[in-house]
Amino acid sequence: MIYNFEEELRRAPKNWGRWGKDDEIGTLNFVTRDHILRSLMTARTGKTFTLGLWINRKEGDPVWIGRRPTVHLMTKDEGTYISGKAEPRPGGGKSADDIVIMHLQGSTQVDALGHYWKDNTLYNGFDSRTTIGGLAKDDVSKLAERGILGRGVLLDVARHKGKGSLDKGEMISFSDLLDTAKEEGVKINKHDIILVRTGFLKTFYEKGPNEFYKDFSEPGITYERELVKWFYENEFIAYGSDTIASEQTYSSTLGIMLPLHIFFLNYLGLPIMEMLWLEELAKDCAEDGQYDFFFIASPLKVIGGTGSPINPIVIK
Amino acid sequence: MIYNFEEELRRAPKNWGRWGKDDEIGTLNFVTRDHILRSLMTARTGKTFTLGLWINRKEGDPVWIGRRPTVHLMTKDEGTYISGKAEPRPGGGKSADDIVIMHLQGSTQVDALGHYWKDNTLYNGFDSRTTIGGLAKDDVSKLAERGILGRGVLLDVARHKGKGSLDKGEMISFSDLLDTAKEEGVKINKHDIILVRTGFLKTFYEKGPNEFYKDFSEPGITYERELVKWFYENEFIAYGSDTIASEQTYSSTLGIMLPLHIFFLNYLGLPIMEMLWLEELAKDCAEDGQYDFFFIASPLKVIGGTGSPINPIVIK
Amino acid sequence: MIYNFEEELRRAPKNWGRWGKDDEIGTLNFVTRDHILRSLMTARTGKTFTLGLWINRKEGDPVWIGRRPTVHLMTKDEGTYISGKAEPRPGGGKSADDIVIMHLQGSTQVDALGHYWKDNTLYNGFDSRTTIGGLAKDDVSKLAERGILGRGVLLDVARHKGKGSLDKGEMISFSDLLDTAKEEGVKINKHDIILVRTGFLKTFYEKGPNEFYKDFSEPGITYERELVKWFYENEFIAYGSDTIASEQTYSSTLGIMLPLHIFFLNYLGLPIMEMLWLEELAKDCAEDGQYDFFFIASPLKVIGGTGSPINPIVIK
Amino acid sequence: MIYNFEEELRRAPKNWGRWGKDDEIGTLNFVTRDHILRSLMTARTGKTFTLGLWINRKEGDPVWIGRRPTVHLMTKDEGTYISGKAEPRPGGGKSADDIVIMHLQGSTQVDALGHYWKDNTLYNGFDSRTTIGGLAKDDVSKLAERGILGRGVLLDVARHKGKGSLDKGEMISFSDLLDTAKEEGVKINKHDIILVRTGFLKTFYEKGPNEFYKDFSEPGITYERELVKWFYENEFIAYGSDTIASEQTYSSTLGIMLPLHIFFLNYLGLPIMEMLWLEELAKDCAEDGQYDFFFIASPLKVIGGTGSPINPIVIK
Repeated sequence: MIYNFEEELRRAPKNWGRWGKDDEIGTLNFVTRDHILRSLMTARTGKTFTLGLWINRKEGDPVWIGRRPTVHLMTKDEGTYISGKAEPRPGGGKSADDIVIMHLQGSTQVDALGHYWKDNTLYNGFDSRTTIGGLAKDDVSKLAERGILGRGVLLDVARHKGKGSLDKGEMISFSDLLDTAKEEGVKINKHDIILVRTGFLKTFYEKGPNEFYKDFSEPGITYERELVKWFYENEFIAYGSDTIASEQTYSSTLGIMLPLHIFFLNYLGLPIMEMLWLEELAKDCAEDGQYDFFFIASPLKVIGGTGSPINPIVIK
Repeated sequence: MIYNFEEELRRAPKNWGRWGKDDEIGTLNFVTRDHILRSLMTARTGKTFTLGLWINRKEGDPVWIGRRPTVHLMTKDEGTYISGKAEPRPGGGKSADDIVIMHLQGSTQVDALGHYWKDNTLYNGFDSRTTIGGLAKDDVSKLAERGILGRGVLLDVARHKGKGSLDKGEMISFSDLLDTAKEEGVKINKHDIILVRTGFLKTFYEKGPNEFYKDFSEPGITYERELVKWFYENEFIAYGSDTIASEQTYSSTLGIMLPLHIFFLNYLGLPIMEMLWLEELAKDCAEDGQYDFFFIASPLKVIGGTGSPINPIVIK
Repeated sequence: MIYNFEEELRRAPKNWGRWGKDDEIGTLNFVTRDHILRSLMTARTGKTFTLGLWINRKEGDPVWIGRRPTVHLMTKDEGTYISGKAEPRPGGGKSADDIVIMHLQGSTQVDALGHYWKDNTLYNGFDSRTTIGGLAKDDVSKLAERGILGRGVLLDVARHKGKGSLDKGEMISFSDLLDTAKEEGVKINKHDIILVRTGFLKTFYEKGPNEFYKDFSEPGITYERELVKWFYENEFIAYGSDTIASEQTYSSTLGIMLPLHIFFLNYLGLPIMEMLWLEELAKDCAEDGQYDFFFIASPLKVIGGTGSPINPIVIK
Repeated sequence: MIYNFEEELRRAPKNWGRWGKDDEIGTLNFVTRDHILRSLMTARTGKTFTLGLWINRKEGDPVWIGRRPTVHLMTKDEGTYISGKAEPRPGGGKSADDIVIMHLQGSTQVDALGHYWKDNTLYNGFDSRTTIGGLAKDDVSKLAERGILGRGVLLDVARHKGKGSLDKGEMISFSDLLDTAKEEGVKINKHDIILVRTGFLKTFYEKGPNEFYKDFSEPGITYERELVKWFYENEFIAYGSDTIASEQTYSSTLGIMLPLHIFFLNYLGLPIMEMLWLEELAKDCAEDGQYDFFFIASPLKVIGGTGSPINPIVIK
């Protein structure tokens, strides 16, 4: 391994206390009215893209191992009227209604800051026992009060590397990110929202679940001292990728699973967005050469939620 | 009654076929790149508001009669580690995870065009049997591919009438809307998104569920020939209000329940947004006198869904 | 109050360790092959009764406050074929399929021994943290391996007191039980299963949920030194009643809620059955004068479950 | 193929109308008080066995393709108290509570008569549109009112054939059944409950789900003219086996899937029990040579249910 985990835990930047001891929204504190107005100027053509995955596809939905795909069930539909179990309203009105049973982290989604922690302490110092029965602290409803808005930048690493999709378990290095930005000609600004494309998520649909889950190991960025410093110093507002966990599953630098979940969510209070669908957006950016845009993700205000499904919107 | 329903059904404007026989998104077709760019210019101060309701509040969540409030259940939390049923990851990482069981129309939400119909035909002429087991046509995933974006206008009728909340069952007339806009000094443009505030939703929290559901009858706009013509001719993109069904429950003009669900969703293909939380936005508009803004709602791409929870964002 | 709770906790009989330190089935240990054969002899006429409540009634299902009634949803039915979303099998076969979302304690049910405890220790000394995420000890699957079988005796206290239903909060005393048995002419034997009828459950259907839940307080037996001694010395196998919690909600003798849940489940390891439907059985016993019978309840083997729905069968 | 399906449909015995046009319980009508009393006499030793599968095992639960295994979630446990989200009751009482999301046919279960049909007509002539939104006719609550009781006979075909488990897709012929009975020395009586052991279900646990579902094809009995006649003339009360669907998946005699579901459930009104766990019972029968017993299965009274989980009890 390149790093010693314990030493990095001591050295890594941390935003605890930065916005007071009650803060539960972390880097969303960087979002100011000026920031919003400046970010809006990145919308130059009016083109829009939605980055949410389909939920309840016949072919199945990708989910992290142990989670179950969403179940969608009708409580009322035309069948209800055909069978005489419901009468149309006077005037003839009929309606359909339905229920979903879904993991809050079961599709394109944002992690609440309290979704992941180390030992016994959530982001900003809250006791991890507050997660029991529903996150009393650092839950997703706090992020949802604000929404996630700002200038987004797409770093299309798969394209930069000339691959349809990165390989299983492939590490994206910090210099890969910088090289990608350079090749794209995009300037990265303070308070940006960083989106990294691996091309990996689409292999679920292209190759099928069996191949996707076989020796499951996602590609992505992972802990590097310079990378985390870059996120910290640039005060990025949020980060996302097109894999289920948005980082290299088994870190090439630390030898453990998902260390950025600790350094981003827990240390920096930086929301991670997962399972972003970046295909159409990436194609368009490659065509028009514009890799920045106004980005909006709006999680649901689920009290106690560890995350929320989102369908982010990009306006170029 | 003022109108004969059957006659109005014959006279009312209808967008079926307007965008081809396969169209499933109705008035969202009016959203063009130019429209997006023009709408963005209404964001003048960078102030933001989120219009979604809290989900899973201890005090309960308002839902239409027959629906059940969302159930939120943890599948993993600190208790899982305390009990030894899960081990922290090497390095000490722990996580919390959860499930919701929720009506797609069980909180702030947008109706799919196929949510409501008359007799046997959905918006744009699809057979209503396609709703069985999940909407094969006019489902919410089609709206979610686009998102609902544009210039929004708040018509704060409760404030205009000098009331904290409109009364149960109170009708908002078309001229109330025009008078409200006039008092607010806001110009209504083609392709706007119209939000109407009744103040009624907050009575669920203020007075409690018992009082809220007693002789349940919501205030709101209802069918008027001029009103529907106005929506049609101005090619409004979407409509929403702060009640569960976003229209007067028992129509004062037609004597039936929820007729606008037919004229808006089914005839015009105009998405209805429901249970919008408008309180902070309304207060701010009253203070700064700016009643228009950039509006974004992004439903989830639930295949077959009759609607989707949303947490709309407003940027003034 | 008649008793001091702390003192009774010290004095009350306890079966911990009686069947070894690993025991998780308590009084079901009393069930031997001889016991089964003797009990079968109480079946003298071949009349049968089922004691389970209906689940998913239109009028609603009674549940303890905070639990939600069962939700029943179809995943396939004739509508699926009408809409073309499923094809009949070659030969024409069609099927219907469904899902329930239900509290394991949401209808007629037996409590696992680990459902209720005091402080930090389950029946037979297990750490209560083993309940987290699913009962690792004293769960219902252990009872279900055996089933609950034996001679049952109905003590129809409501009838004995000449009431259609006992009053809200009414205490049934130990001497009420003995007097009822005496009036019925039924001999109570060692290892019996004791069923106590209050007539209260049927008021849910007769008077409606509003009246049923108003100032909610169920009638029933409660802690008395002699009563618990009687259960202990007679080595009764199980106990049940026709209320949601099968004991007086607010104990007249101890001033606390549901103390028998501690003395029965936790101290004696005696399964409690709740929400038994005793109406037809009681009527028949009154007619033929036979108050004992062969009783079978067969919980489901839900690993980790706090209880299981049952539909007990009585053979007279 | 041996038979022509259409011709057999015409020839096969049918109990429609036999117990009046309103009947929804079919062969359970054969259960009389005398039958119960006679059947009880098969309980000669007091040995008991429970035939339900475990639900919610870590290794997974076997379910028919397209169904999902049961989900078990805690709503309260010791974690709730540790986190301070619930207070012990005065006196110190604490409790655990939970929910299951389960297919009614997702574990050991009995099929309602309306679970399976051909074309448009349920058992006894009811319109199959009555299944929509919940079985209004022939649902499992009708069977549950009675319970399934009587003399059961185990035909251990796997043992008779000298196999641990029958092969995938292996047909059990009618003469296999008769030969097995002959070898066991068990007399089959009118009104019996017939249990057939294939040994197949246990391969789910022994070999794992991947092997179990690979080229999925269960062994079992299938349509034979003599077999169905035998069931009809002997007026058997119920039938079950240790596979998910309790008959040969692809019929060797008719070339279609699951034809007995039509001839048993739909034609005869004969309840089919599935996923019976017969291993311990079979071993004991082999040891003591007693292959008949008193059998009790008690489905839950789920209104509209297509089936119900059961944990049948056998008393030898």
